[in-house]
Amino acid sequence: MSQVYDRVALIGLGLIASSMFWAIKRAGLAGEVTGYARSEATRDTARRIGLCDRVCDTAKEAVEGADLVVLCVPVGAMEAVAQEIAPVLKPGATVTDVGSVKRHVIQVVSPHIPKGVHFIPAHPLAGTEHSGPESGFAELFDNRWSLLVPVEGSDPHAIARLRALWEGMGANVDEMDADHHDLVLAVTSHAPHLIAYTMVGVADDLRRVTDSEVIKYSAAGFRDFTRIAASDPTMWRDVFLTNKDATLEILGRFTEELFALQRAIRTGDGEHLFDYFTRTRAIRRGIIDAGQDTDAPDFGRGKANP
Amino acid sequence: MSQVYDRVALIGLGLIASSMFWAIKRAGLAGEVTGYARSEATRDTARRIGLCDRVCDTAKEAVEGADLVVLCVPVGAMEAVAQEIAPVLKPGATVTDVGSVKRHVIQVVSPHIPKGVHFIPAHPLAGTEHSGPESGFAELFDNRWSLLVPVEGSDPHAIARLRALWEGMGANVDEMDADHHDLVLAVTSHAPHLIAYTMVGVADDLRRVTDSEVIKYSAAGFRDFTRIAASDPTMWRDVFLTNKDATLEILGRFTEELFALQRAIRTGDGEHLFDYFTRTRAIRRGIIDAGQDTDAPDFGRGKANP
Repeated sequence: MSQVYDRVALIGLGLIASSMFWAIKRAGLAGEVTGYARSEATRDTARRIGLCDRVCDTAKEAVEGADLVVLCVPVGAMEAVAQEIAPVLKPGATVTDVGSVKRHVIQVVSPHIPKGVHFIPAHPLAGTEHSGPESGFAELFDNRWSLLVPVEGSDPHAIARLRALWEGMGANVDEMDADHHDLVLAVTSHAPHLIAYTMVGVADDLRRVTDSEVIKYSAAGFRDFTRIAASDPTMWRDVFLTNKDATLEILGRFTEELFALQRAIRTGDGEHLFDYFTRTRAIRRGIIDAGQDTDAPDFGRGKANP
Repeated sequence: MSQVYDRVALIGLGLIASSMFWAIKRAGLAGEVTGYARSEATRDTARRIGLCDRVCDTAKEAVEGADLVVLCVPVGAMEAVAQEIAPVLKPGATVTDVGSVKRHVIQVVSPHIPKGVHFIPAHPLAGTEHSGPESGFAELFDNRWSLLVPVEGSDPHAIARLRALWEGMGANVDEMDADHHDLVLAVTSHAPHLIAYTMVGVADDLRRVTDSEVIKYSAAGFRDFTRIAASDPTMWRDVFLTNKDATLEILGRFTEELFALQRAIRTGDGEHLFDYFTRTRAIRRGIIDAGQDTDAPDFGRGKANP
């Protein structure tokens, strides 16, 4: 793989940025990668573990001279960072981000992007329930999708270059409109996360009654929900606040379906339940066929403990 | 490990029964294991893959002379099977089951158990999203919990023997009251399954609009729901119909919490969301500390594709 950018700046050093750094290094995609994090503790950790070729004490310092600037902060912090770095952005440089919501990021970041700088929002659909600078690894994006969400009038060459970077990091790349992205992600990610958070919260209330039984017997299905509900609270707060409409729309449909199934349980309508559960089973098959999961049974143990 | 029973009969040859057979063989816990399945195709498969020492064409034939009879059929089929085998049960034998609901099974099976035969309901908290005679493996119960739910007046020696079998198959064993079992399982398993089925159903509706996008981008959180929602439709229909009250109670609490979080999103109450998500994260830590999952990140790939 050949070099795509001379210098890349990663602003925010959490799971995604640290994985990007190791993936960029794995494939030799950039000459130098600079990094900045707001917290001094994070910068110290980054320096200790060799995360980034150069860790800077200000965002401006990290951004100066960069051909690509990647905003890897929570969605709610994007605007302040964009405003701060705007004066030092190099003409012809590209600014991108990795936020889980796209319409909101475009609305708050675009106004700060100077003329002559390209802004190409993006969203890698990859993650784990861990966060922070030590949680990243080079393989995170392998065979995962990264969505580019170009704004009107984006430069095709700048888009092609960013696509080459993501492909070099192992990802499949698609382009998508911002509103459509936010709706699809509300279904595949945002609503499922809120539902998992909710179910775990309900169990937590019950746990106070039944001591540790909910944890002890979690392998029966609940455990998968706790993994999802262990994701970073700041990131997810921002996602729900900034993708409000699509998330609430999907949750409305979810509640409607849930009420229909509850009524089937209450009235003893086994046929309705059986048909519903048969239909959902087929979707699983589609996901395996699409290469987004394996057919190996999940033994209820996770990969490190087969 | 020494032999616990001379002869064990497995009635129903799906995921749990086939895993029991391989686990019993691994540890030499029984002299002979007979098996019966209602479907001829299942019996043929069992004979082909060496599942059970002897596959019988009737439940009665499998049960005759057995010291332990394990009912491994869906909860809704338990009564008919109990009625069928009752006349041939050996005096002093133990009948147990592996159903996910216990109060209902006790209600419908107990009346058919002859005097002099022990009935000790049980429920191993283990499974995968696969079903059928070929889905079993000896390690399924290792370090998982199996709950014994003795009915009033159960013989302590018969309980101790069944406990020894489950421990010999690798499980940890606890005893629990039937109603308490059904409530705890409604939280850790039944409600999460219904919620996962619902979310996948909602996505399926949307998939008709957006083609394959929901499947393509499923790795963002939705994929874990599809795994849960791929579980056996017959088994789960029966679970919901027979653990109706506890499931509906937990779903009621779930809906209440969900509405509170939806309101927080609608009103932009970030503090409420952040606090809620921080609390649920702590539960994940408890599950890892309890040895019911590992801290290894789920790369979104499943164990067979690291």
